[in-house]
Amino acid sequence: MSVLVVGSVAFDTIETPRGKVEKVLGGSANYFSITTSYFTGVSLVGIVGEDFPVEHIRFLQSRNVCTDGLKVTQGNTFHWAGKYDKTYKDAETLSTALNVFEHFSPELPDHYKDKPYVFLANIDPTLQAHVLEQIQKPKIVACDTMNFWIYGKREELLSTLKLVDIFIINETEAKDLSGEINLVEAARKIRCMGPQILIIKRGEYGAMMFTSESVFASPGYPLSNVVDPTGAGDSFAGGFMGYLAKTGNTFEEEALRKAVVYGNTMASFVVEGFSFDRLKDLNSQMIERRFQDFVALSKV
Amino acid sequence: MSVLVVGSVAFDTIETPRGKVEKVLGGSANYFSITTSYFTGVSLVGIVGEDFPVEHIRFLQSRNVCTDGLKVTQGNTFHWAGKYDKTYKDAETLSTALNVFEHFSPELPDHYKDKPYVFLANIDPTLQAHVLEQIQKPKIVACDTMNFWIYGKREELLSTLKLVDIFIINETEAKDLSGEINLVEAARKIRCMGPQILIIKRGEYGAMMFTSESVFASPGYPLSNVVDPTGAGDSFAGGFMGYLAKTGNTFEEEALRKAVVYGNTMASFVVEGFSFDRLKDLNSQMIERRFQDFVALSKV
Repeated sequence: MSVLVVGSVAFDTIETPRGKVEKVLGGSANYFSITTSYFTGVSLVGIVGEDFPVEHIRFLQSRNVCTDGLKVTQGNTFHWAGKYDKTYKDAETLSTALNVFEHFSPELPDHYKDKPYVFLANIDPTLQAHVLEQIQKPKIVACDTMNFWIYGKREELLSTLKLVDIFIINETEAKDLSGEINLVEAARKIRCMGPQILIIKRGEYGAMMFTSESVFASPGYPLSNVVDPTGAGDSFAGGFMGYLAKTGNTFEEEALRKAVVYGNTMASFVVEGFSFDRLKDLNSQMIERRFQDFVALSKV
Repeated sequence: MSVLVVGSVAFDTIETPRGKVEKVLGGSANYFSITTSYFTGVSLVGIVGEDFPVEHIRFLQSRNVCTDGLKVTQGNTFHWAGKYDKTYKDAETLSTALNVFEHFSPELPDHYKDKPYVFLANIDPTLQAHVLEQIQKPKIVACDTMNFWIYGKREELLSTLKLVDIFIINETEAKDLSGEINLVEAARKIRCMGPQILIIKRGEYGAMMFTSESVFASPGYPLSNVVDPTGAGDSFAGGFMGYLAKTGNTFEEEALRKAVVYGNTMASFVVEGFSFDRLKDLNSQMIERRFQDFVALSKV
């Protein structure tokens, strides 16, 4: 089954201890789409300016990503610049030029409106809700956010969360949203806000999933070749949703656990290169091999 | 088979967001001994002053810990005071009174010298080596250390590491000792220093084990009731060595992985109370139940 994603389509300028790249392809919707495309079809909703190179659109289309929902408008494309120190933890934002993204109002083409799997990447929670209003009976709605919305649009975010099945955020966001430092308590509070399933991304430590049935922890893969962490979170979401959509699963515990490991798998690839360098040339055999490595990693 | 441990026997004064305790039983050798005692017999080597209450010695003996190697000498017992903030990460040391521990020179009773499993808790690496000189053909030597020795007695530590099979340290220590931020690289370098097996403790994130065959990651158990992290590292080592000694295993991959999970299991208990509160009343059924919870936690 196919997946709908709404999020940012952007240029990134990134500096890490391994080098610097300027104005490369970035954006949450792109990272999600490309990783999901290794599992199933994706329909992208986003906005770019007239400066967005056609080669990037062709790249998305070559991966079978439907770009009918990608609006091209007058102005420049969203451009983020950031820098990672040698720990490769949280990026320091050097500049953010929202450009056309500032007035983004996602409108879905008619043939997007019956998509069964929906991922609302990190955008204004009001816009996330606006997307859901246009969709008929999705099977799963998953959603991401960031501290900017947790503090700046808390009420709107809480409204959106009532409509969401699966919430995928990082550890700091979980603590900030819940006001709890203890992760078990944080998860309990957040699941009371609406999402029946909460996934907490923990960077190099992997991910945890809290459901009504259990807690699942999938450790991070020990990578020696970390180049650029940008896009890891959205690639996680892409692997997670891609696997569920491909198999037609929704809330089955076993499938959800596998989906988390596929999420970690895809995230572990993306950090091995700048931008989409590592995501361009994957194949299902490489993905399956690393998935099995992940399974073996924590096998008792 | 039985286990020999050398380390500190101490008083702790501890403050955490959950309360404060004064001059309670602490020390690496004690935490290790009590946790190991749930698996097999333990022989303790340490030193205390005349102020050490007989009730603590009776407690150790009630858990079948042999205290023939515990020297009682003129002066006061080692006393550490520390404080944890609400994150429960690294303690802030408020005071350290080494007292009789300052002139500790571990001498083994004769009936200790053929112990097959040996754990050198965090003490001066010169003393760790001195213990090994007294032991005949151990099956496994495991060892811990801390940044104080990594920076203060690096050469001595490197000499000791050549005699060690299993090295159990935390993430910061691994990075500091190797000079590598990347954990895979850090592990590779440290294993070249001597220990064929390296275990890296990662606090709430669990533990990783690097062997010649594979990397194993055991995630931390999601605890809602964290009271005091003191002793978690030594309790990890106690569960790890206790399981290996009980089963008579040495370097079998499957046994080592289970031992790591038993290490995490015992560490998860100790943090639920101050001092030995949670370690006093365990039984094998409770330990086995939590071990199974750990296995289920990361089962794909």
